[in-house]
Amino acid sequence: MPPENNSRAKPEHHCSIHRSLDLIGEKWSLLIVRNALRGESRFSEFRDNLGVPSDVLTARLSSLVDAGVLERRPYREPGERERYSYHLTDEGRALKTVLIALQEWGDEYNPNPGGRVSLTRDVVTGQHASIGFVADDGSVLDAADVTLVPGPAATFSW
Amino acid sequence: MPPENNSRAKPEHHCSIHRSLDLIGEKWSLLIVRNALRGESRFSEFRDNLGVPSDVLTARLSSLVDAGVLERRPYREPGERERYSYHLTDEGRALKTVLIALQEWGDEYNPNPGGRVSLTRDVVTGQHASIGFVADDGSVLDAADVTLVPGPAATFSW
Repeated sequence: MPPENNSRAKPEHHCSIHRSLDLIGEKWSLLIVRNALRGESRFSEFRDNLGVPSDVLTARLSSLVDAGVLERRPYREPGERERYSYHLTDEGRALKTVLIALQEWGDEYNPNPGGRVSLTRDVVTGQHASIGFVADDGSVLDAADVTLVPGPAATFSW
Repeated sequence: MPPENNSRAKPEHHCSIHRSLDLIGEKWSLLIVRNALRGESRFSEFRDNLGVPSDVLTARLSSLVDAGVLERRPYREPGERERYSYHLTDEGRALKTVLIALQEWGDEYNPNPGGRVSLTRDVVTGQHASIGFVADDGSVLDAADVTLVPGPAATFSW
């Protein structure tokens, strides 16, 4: 199997799903984004909480910065050398929807025997929130009624 | 970097996002599901339309069958040997939401210069549909108001 391409700044495929997966399509990248959504920003936090090897984490953080998902900011603790922390951009925060879609799929089809690790809430009312499909007129759709159709740039294999 | 674990039938992490990515967290698996949602089912279709090496495709199809995302069915063309085709289970079809979330993220932040390859439609009315968050009372929420909070099985690092 060839090594994954780590220069991900410019995916060349036409389909947005493929282009997105060229940017963030392996496990560690999305888990870094998950932990960043929980408030983590430091290399040591990601490394210790994810259990990801340092060299893999270095490569993934760099790819996510190149892709515009994270931004790097310098900081310095008293008596320490300057280090960098990693913060979600707007593009990175928008992956929340992808992660919650993955979470709901996992909770439905492959649940943790010990119960749910996280729940989705509306911060305004505290109500449980879930992923849905909404039509342009604001009506909530049945997921089974939603389909993908070829767009203007579709090719033979779209 | 250690090789990815291909025996994915029983992820051991607690978090559903992590458990889901243990099952389908690399690019080819989700692209196979994407093409299956478009109606493809045969090894040769996936191989030719995805451009994935045969040995990788064999491994990924096997993982997706083990994970319950695809089911294998025998078929035989006249004069040919028996082969298998691969069909989405209910669990596999439910990944449509994850893929459309990825598609919308890509269309927003990393669009194809030539235009969109696929569009999301309500099959009943033909309206454009998009991913949203819906509260238990049926109201459509602003994505910025949706947050993840620790669930009953949350640990120190949830």
